[in-house]
Formats: sequence, structure tokens, C-alpha cells
Amino acid sequence: MSDIARIESADIADLARGAAILGTGGGGDPYIGQLMALEALESLGPVELVAPADLPDQAQILPVAMMGAPTVMIEKLPSVDQFVVAVEALGQYLGVQPTHIACMEAGGVNSTIPIVAAAQMGLPLLDGDFMGRAFPELQMVTATLFDIPATPMSITDDKGNAGIFNTVSNLWAERLARVATVEMGAAAIVSLYPMRGDQAKTSAVAGTLSLCVRLGRAVRQARAAHTDPVAAVAEVLGGRLLHLGKVVDVVRRTTAGFARGEAKLAGLEHDAGATLTLNFQNEHIIATRQGVVLATAPDLLICLDVDTGEPITTESMRFGHRIALLAAPCDSRWQTPEGIALVGPRYFGYDIDPVRWNQVSL
Amino acid sequence: MSDIARIESADIADLARGAAILGTGGGGDPYIGQLMALEALESLGPVELVAPADLPDQAQILPVAMMGAPTVMIEKLPSVDQFVVAVEALGQYLGVQPTHIACMEAGGVNSTIPIVAAAQMGLPLLDGDFMGRAFPELQMVTATLFDIPATPMSITDDKGNAGIFNTVSNLWAERLARVATVEMGAAAIVSLYPMRGDQAKTSAVAGTLSLCVRLGRAVRQARAAHTDPVAAVAEVLGGRLLHLGKVVDVVRRTTAGFARGEAKLAGLEHDAGATLTLNFQNEHIIATRQGVVLATAPDLLICLDVDTGEPITTESMRFGHRIALLAAPCDSRWQTPEGIALVGPRYFGYDIDPVRWNQVSL
Repeated sequence: MSDIARIESADIADLARGAAILGTGGGGDPYIGQLMALEALESLGPVELVAPADLPDQAQILPVAMMGAPTVMIEKLPSVDQFVVAVEALGQYLGVQPTHIACMEAGGVNSTIPIVAAAQMGLPLLDGDFMGRAFPELQMVTATLFDIPATPMSITDDKGNAGIFNTVSNLWAERLARVATVEMGAAAIVSLYPMRGDQAKTSAVAGTLSLCVRLGRAVRQARAAHTDPVAAVAEVLGGRLLHLGKVVDVVRRTTAGFARGEAKLAGLEHDAGATLTLNFQNEHIIATRQGVVLATAPDLLICLDVDTGEPITTESMRFGHRIALLAAPCDSRWQTPEGIALVGPRYFGYDIDPVRWNQVSL
Repeated sequence: MSDIARIESADIADLARGAAILGTGGGGDPYIGQLMALEALESLGPVELVAPADLPDQAQILPVAMMGAPTVMIEKLPSVDQFVVAVEALGQYLGVQPTHIACMEAGGVNSTIPIVAAAQMGLPLLDGDFMGRAFPELQMVTATLFDIPATPMSITDDKGNAGIFNTVSNLWAERLARVATVEMGAAAIVSLYPMRGDQAKTSAVAGTLSLCVRLGRAVRQARAAHTDPVAAVAEVLGGRLLHLGKVVDVVRRTTAGFARGEAKLAGLEHDAGATLTLNFQNEHIIATRQGVVLATAPDLLICLDVDTGEPITTESMRFGHRIALLAAPCDSRWQTPEGIALVGPRYFGYDIDPVRWNQVSL
């Protein structure tokens, strides 16, 4: 059974905050995702959550997601009608009626877009995803580790253009969908990884939508109780504080459909005198302090506002922002050799071994 | 009735030469197109040609073409099996059985690829195309002037990747298919502009495959009779000689899926002392001599070897090549305001009015 049985409009603020935490810097403005989901649930009612373990083997699951640079979405809001268009385009191409909607990514707007689609289509939503966090490329899902193909996939834009891809690998799905996304204006809606219940059961990271709600709630309750919201998040995720710092520099550029760059956090309090560098490609990939790599993807690198515990995306980082950087463990399947090949530092172009969230003595 | 009733293997050398003439610099190496079509016709027998006027109104026509930079095709030969894959992918998506194959472009390999597909599928081929020459972008067809949509279209590559696009305009089809083509390795096979017989009847440029055969034959016969093959081509097309020159410079680069550049032809004989510049984007767009624009797209600018009358593509132009540059009239529909907007000099980025093939006194 799922941790929580349904998502109601009252859960959305917590869920969006939690999704931004798992978004590890990427995933877009959580406020936009929150507004979209709130509007859908208030007008259409709650969305039923189904745990992967409770899926019928023959369930027909169509995940839906936004692809592109989160930076762009702030200026160009996704149209809520587009989500169903993408799901239906894939369903029609496959000749199947979906029985469940799913998230591919439990991070940022990709946690809330499927809620909107599920509400609009009157379908239950999988309580889980296929990353357990956010990653920037579409082959970076546990489904790839289980040889579940990303295609057939649909891709749609806000102008009414649509495409279907059938590719020889999930990396080729990423390559073709990425260039189409860039041409479509750096943001597109995709429905991909169509799968049966038995496939989702074995490959999904279970319970991540419930986890988003619990994470967001923990921050809210800590603030109400005047306890430390950052510590509350670390406790829920089983992670730890890596660095307390003030943003002194952010370099961000939108290239090839990604937000890439780095941020420098000058240490505060017990970290005073040490500057930490965060490298990101939509999501935070590497944290380095005084030449020492403190933690890397696939473990989670999470920036929270020191005082409020609010998650901070790479787009919202500003000079002077006081940030608590947490590291937390990823789903264990990412720590296999196959997982590291797919989402480890070398894939992102850094010639270093992965460093676990708790590996370095601070 | 079509000018010639069928294409046989004995016609292919003439047809490929004629197609390279209409290719106006683009369209790829005619020898490659010739080999592919020869092999198909020798093993599978002749392909029936059908004049647009003879099409049943309910005929289901699926055109097929190669998209990309012709430069690339010289190093990466298209696989003949890919053509049928593209046509069948579109037919399956549409749920129709094609009754006829067609060329979108009567130029270079896009005249011979549909012959291969027609032979392999045992279908008749339209004696016509939708440009009456070659143009570099997929919206640049008479079908666009008749509001016939380019999509649904299929796109396939040599690795086994495939896509379907549904776009809001033919220009959007070009944009999305172009970036996919570039990612696929700068060459892809597309099946597009699916149309009925009545649509093809009104929009096609009739007789252009027969014209290719007649053009190629005229060159061959002139050579055999020791008469001037260049004059023979000019006569068949109703064009004229613009410039006789020797290639002294060629700048060519493959960018955004196109071969772009310019060639300089130092004048010979009565053109001695005057250098002509040809600007091309796959095809020749503008011919300028001593600051005077002599002719522009949409009229045809054709480079032939001075002595043999063999067409010369932009890829095969070399220093020292002695070239006769012909200009010839395009299909009259390109000279309407809508046609000029689609394929005139301004679309290609030159801020000049179009100049007709016979407009300037030489």
C-alpha cells in the first residue's frame, strides 16, 4: 500500500516543496509546479496513489514529464493542456488505454505535472518514480538498468507540434528528443517509457511522491515548531549537512537544452574560510571544497535556505543567499557499476570516481 | 500519359545525369544515386511512371527523400533498405497502403531514391516532383503553395532510429526534421507530404523524371555527335549560358545540416577578366559578376563541365575546373509572390529582389 492513499489539494504545497528538495537544484521553479497541481486538484478532486507493489501486472503505465532547461520554464509556463496531449499521443500510437500515470523523475515540476495529467484523465498515479531524485537526461532512470525502452515516446510543444520517436537505445531517445526540445524552444512535454505493471514493480523507486509530501511537511512543521528545518530534511532523507555557506558567485548558461554552470558558497560559521564549489547540469553533480570532492552524483546534493529550509534551485540562487548544502544517499541501484556508468561523475564529464554522501570526514 | 512509360535500368545513367543537372549544385553525387537505382532495377525490373494527370483522385501517394547535407552522403552511403522503412513507417502511422511513390525533389539522389523504393515495393512512381529542381529545405515545395501539409512525416536513420512528426506548419516540419537529421549524422531518410491523387494532380511539377532522362540523353547524344552538350542542355531547359569560367576558389562548410559556401569562377573566353561568384546552400542560390546579380533562385543555376556537359555538384567543384554556368526558368508557380516568399533570395538571407534567368543583358 502507498504511504498516503491520495494526493489532495491540501498536500500540494508540501509535495511541491519536497519535490524541489529531491530536485537537487534542477526541476524548475517549485511554485509553478505547485500552482498547476493545485488548480487541477481543486477543480477535479484528489488523485489516487498506487504503490508499485500494488500494481496489476498488466497495468498500462504512461509516464509524463517536461524535458528541457528549467531556466526556460520560468519565462515560458507550460500549458496544463499539453500534458494530456502528450500522454494521448503516445497511447494512440501504441493503441493502448493507459491505466496509470507515472512520474519518471521525483523532482521539481516533474513530480507535479503527472498529478495534473492524472487528475485530468481520471487515472491513478504511481507512488514512485524512476530516479528517486532528479537527473538531467532521459536515459538516467532505473528503467534503463532494467532494459525497459524509453520509446516509443511522444514529444509535444506549446505551439501544437508533436513527434513520436522509436530509437535503438535510451541514449538515442535522449539525443533525438533533446534536439527536438531545443528546437521547440528549450522546453517540451514528453510521454515515454510506456510500461506494464510488472515492469514498474521491479524498476520503480517506490514511495517517492509520498516522500515528497513527508519532506515538505517536515520543513513546514519544523518552522512552526521553531526547530531546525534543515536538520528535519537531513533526518527524513538519512543525509547530513556538508557545508554552510553564502553564495558569492553563480555562473549559469543555457546550452544544448540544459542549464549548466557552477556556484561558489563562501563558508559560514564552522565552515568559515572554506569556499565550496557546486557544479551543475540542471541538477547539482559535484561538491568540492578546498580541492576535496565532498560528494557527487548519483548521491543527492541539496541546497536549502539556512533559515527557512526552503529548497533553492540553481535558477533562484543569488549573491548573498545563505545556504545549507546537504548530501543524502540515492537509491541503492544507482551505486551499482551499471548505475554509476549511467549517472556517475564521468558521464557528466568529470574524470573522478563517485564520492558517497558520507564518505569524507568533515 | 507520361512522357516515357517506365524507367528501365538502361535509362538510369541518363536519368541520374539529368537529375544532377536539375540538382543545381545540390542533391549529392549522381553516381551514388545511379548505382542504387541500377542495382534495384536490374534485380527487380522496371518501374512504371504515372503522369500526375493520370492519377486516380483517391490514389494514396507517399513521397520519399533523403534529407541532410549532400557532403555527408559521399562518406556515408544511404542504405537502400532504409527507403522502404521510411515509407512503411509513415504508411503504418497513417493506416494507409500507398498506391504510388513520388519524388519531392527532381534533383540528385532524390530523383533516384524513390525509384529504388518503388521497385522494392512494386509500386508505380509519379512522373513529376514538387520543386521542378532541387531546393535545400523541405517546405520549399509546390505542395506548400497548395496548403498540403508536410506531416505526418516519418524520419529514419541508418542505425535503426525512427521518428514521426506532426507539425503546425511545413516550416516547423523542416525545423524539427532538420535538427533530428543533424543528430542522426547529417543524413536521414524521410517520407512526407502524404497526399491523394487529386492533390498531386494540382500541385506537382509534371514530367520531371522524364525530363531528367531527356536531359541526360541530350548530353550523351551531343557528345556522341561531337556537338556542344552545354548548348543541348540549354535548349532542353529553355535556358541560356550565363558565364564560362574556371574555378579559382571554393569555400564550403557543413553547418546546421547544410552544405553552405561560395565558389568563384574566373572568366574564360568571352568572359575573360570577369569573375563570377556563386553562393550556395546545398543548391546554387545567387550568381553575381562584377557586382551585378545575373540570376537568382528560384530560377535554376546549373554548373556543367565545359567540355563534357557533365553536371558539377558543389562537392565535386575543384580548383581549375572549367565550368559553363547556365540559367534556366523554374516552374512558373515559383515566380508568384507566395513562391518568391518561400524560395526567393530574401528567404536565403540575401537582401535582393529575385533576378530572372534572362533578365540581365550579358
